[in-house]
Amino acid sequence: MTATTDDTADDTSPAPPFRWLAGAARERAAAGLTRVLRPRPHDEDVLDLASNDYLGLARDARVTGAAAQAARRWGAGATGSRLVTGDTLLHRALEEELADFYGTESALVFSSGYAANLAMVTALSGRGAHLVCDRLNHASLIDAARLAKASGARVSLFGHADPDSAARALDEASEGSEAERRALVSDTVFSVDGDLTDLPGLSRACRSTGAALLLDDAHGLGVVGPGGAGALTAAELRGARDTVVSVTLSKSLGAQGGAVLGPSCVVRHLVETARTFIFDTGLAPASAGAAREALRLLRTDPGLAERLRGRARALCTGLSEHGLDTSAPDGAVVSVIADSPEECTRWARRCAERGVRVGCFRPPSVPDGRPRLRLTARADLSPTDIDRAIDTVVRCRPAPPSSIPGETTPPTGL
Amino acid sequence: MTATTDDTADDTSPAPPFRWLAGAARERAAAGLTRVLRPRPHDEDVLDLASNDYLGLARDARVTGAAAQAARRWGAGATGSRLVTGDTLLHRALEEELADFYGTESALVFSSGYAANLAMVTALSGRGAHLVCDRLNHASLIDAARLAKASGARVSLFGHADPDSAARALDEASEGSEAERRALVSDTVFSVDGDLTDLPGLSRACRSTGAALLLDDAHGLGVVGPGGAGALTAAELRGARDTVVSVTLSKSLGAQGGAVLGPSCVVRHLVETARTFIFDTGLAPASAGAAREALRLLRTDPGLAERLRGRARALCTGLSEHGLDTSAPDGAVVSVIADSPEECTRWARRCAERGVRVGCFRPPSVPDGRPRLRLTARADLSPTDIDRAIDTVVRCRPAPPSSIPGETTPPTGL
Ligand SMILES: Cc1ncc(COP(=O)(O)O)c(C=O)c1O
Ligand SMILES: Cc1ncc(COP(=O)(O)O)c(C=O)c1O
Repeated sequence: MTATTDDTADDTSPAPPFRWLAGAARERAAAGLTRVLRPRPHDEDVLDLASNDYLGLARDARVTGAAAQAARRWGAGATGSRLVTGDTLLHRALEEELADFYGTESALVFSSGYAANLAMVTALSGRGAHLVCDRLNHASLIDAARLAKASGARVSLFGHADPDSAARALDEASEGSEAERRALVSDTVFSVDGDLTDLPGLSRACRSTGAALLLDDAHGLGVVGPGGAGALTAAELRGARDTVVSVTLSKSLGAQGGAVLGPSCVVRHLVETARTFIFDTGLAPASAGAAREALRLLRTDPGLAERLRGRARALCTGLSEHGLDTSAPDGAVVSVIADSPEECTRWARRCAERGVRVGCFRPPSVPDGRPRLRLTARADLSPTDIDRAIDTVVRCRPAPPSSIPGETTPPTGL
Repeated sequence: MTATTDDTADDTSPAPPFRWLAGAARERAAAGLTRVLRPRPHDEDVLDLASNDYLGLARDARVTGAAAQAARRWGAGATGSRLVTGDTLLHRALEEELADFYGTESALVFSSGYAANLAMVTALSGRGAHLVCDRLNHASLIDAARLAKASGARVSLFGHADPDSAARALDEASEGSEAERRALVSDTVFSVDGDLTDLPGLSRACRSTGAALLLDDAHGLGVVGPGGAGALTAAELRGARDTVVSVTLSKSLGAQGGAVLGPSCVVRHLVETARTFIFDTGLAPASAGAAREALRLLRTDPGLAERLRGRARALCTGLSEHGLDTSAPDGAVVSVIADSPEECTRWARRCAERGVRVGCFRPPSVPDGRPRLRLTARADLSPTDIDRAIDTVVRCRPAPPSSIPGETTPPTGL
């Protein structure tokens, strides 16, 4: 038998089991939703307003130096699950420092923020549990809820960032499930628009029903709260013992990985039951070392997060003054609504041609179907960078495809 | 409101929503299934037979040097999703080299093998699809099937490594689902016992029904096949265009990350639809750089995998000669059956006290409920290491708890 026994067609046409992919690709293309990878060189000369490297630490020599040193000292990989050979004193130190920064008893590091979210939500639910989720939660929290459902949990959604809707969902949940096993699941800062949820309101809703509060602070760490201490500190929920929070090491800390932080009993439970902890190789030492150094830099310069937020406000103000439909930033993200996926793509491409990289978020990455440019501020942007960014985005807006001169264009994308 | 408003108990007892965790912990303890993290120092002096660093490359100075160089050149993190800012020419080069090594058109790198498996299985199934899965598949493939089910796929299981059972499952599947959307999902080398599935048999079953074959070669890459080229090459399925395969960069390549390899149309489909690709930060440059260098070393020394397999055979032979219940290794793993989870833990601990680290796999990590020591060979073990390992494992076996002197002990763990 050879590799192509069943492959009667020529060498480049898809094999029988994959022919359906062509139709799916055509459908995406027709909807303007084709996605293409554009690998960047290491020395490109662009003004980057698309990354999640909010504090500019991913390329900081102290952080990359710590990554290099950790690889040399601890090895290129963890060599196994944390429960077998993948656990090192380096992971332990990072966990202690993260827990200390968030004021929680314990922390547990994962290979990604995605894996941390899958662990947090599935290990703390299961049969007899009921999860109540913000309807615009991040994909990783949605997948986590799907997995929890597959293990017998019930899942319901509440209105985006709406504590009243959440309270109603929790009340309904308490009728059917074990009172102890209810949990509210939400992003703190939503990734697409960078808007902050109503954390005090959500916490009140949980406390009045005895439910747990499970939060994803991926875009809060290093960005919101005093000194970038995150959304929980900002909402006076620092160290709250009925609350569990996940973070990523891949955004403001400029590395890779994720963590779940909370009471020790929760972390112990994750160690013993979370599938994406038990059955996954530990985080690479270089990433753990880099994240530790980035966290140290964040803690030694409490002005870093405030500078970042100032840059975001300046970007937003400038773009709004030019009549663009922007959202006021709670964190580091400024989004600018586009008329259509095609316009969004063209707009971002024209900015890139002028050396300014902005994100282009289209369905299904945007929950409301409204495509937008997503600009992320960075703490290390200069006033000149900000001016150049505003000027470029404003000039690069494609002309509306069929606007009649003199006619007022109706509000777009609503 | 303070962080502990609702926390009427003392500071260390669990908050109301987490009280149930104590009962769950007691149940695990009663079943002998408590798991504890034991972080290792960077300079420990042990003979390690528990890691998945099969080729001994994780601490090879050329590999750690490549990690360090990549961090310095490309940054500590990828800074965003591969579709936004996280794609670099380094990722692209690694993908080309992996595809070349496996003889596939394309490859796509993920932040972990776990994420790669979730992507491969969910993006190639969905509504109208039917997945037919080996009942002992790895946790990541099981979670992937659960997610696929949540998106409308149907899932059925077949007998472990049994092509006839797989063929029957595919036949039954074809009655209910779109003929084109059937896929068989299996590990190539199973992680617990290191046993190889019947790949030619599974491939025949797929081809006779037109189903896709989705394989996880995490423990095959660098281990089985000529020059460590993996299980597909060993089974003459190299480059098969009806087959998609995932690998990890975290085992024989000593780094972190995963990849899916297959026809270009499949990789394009993953780029555009796989949630753990789109909504996850790209792999850290240090891990990508390390994996590239490890792959280069594997390719320049085709004897590496053969040396590894020789070490595994020597371990197995020696342990069997001492009357231990071992399984003959297809790859790098030798497992030794223990009587109970408690014996398994004690056995492994006694080995550790004598400076030999072996894995201790207990439910739910062992699919058949039989706890075992899991020993992994490494290409760089010396004959002295092998002798010491055998001697230590044999001597450290705990005495059966209640054996009556003179009585023959029945075969254990069956
Ligand atoms: C809100 C949120 N949570 C979790 C993740 C996943 O984190 P990671 O990329 O570290 O896996 C992301 C994005 O990547 C995110 O935006
Ligand atoms: C068979 C198999 N597939 C996938 C994985 C996951 O790979 P990774 O650890 O790189 O996430 C593992 C183990 O970790 C495994 O044993």
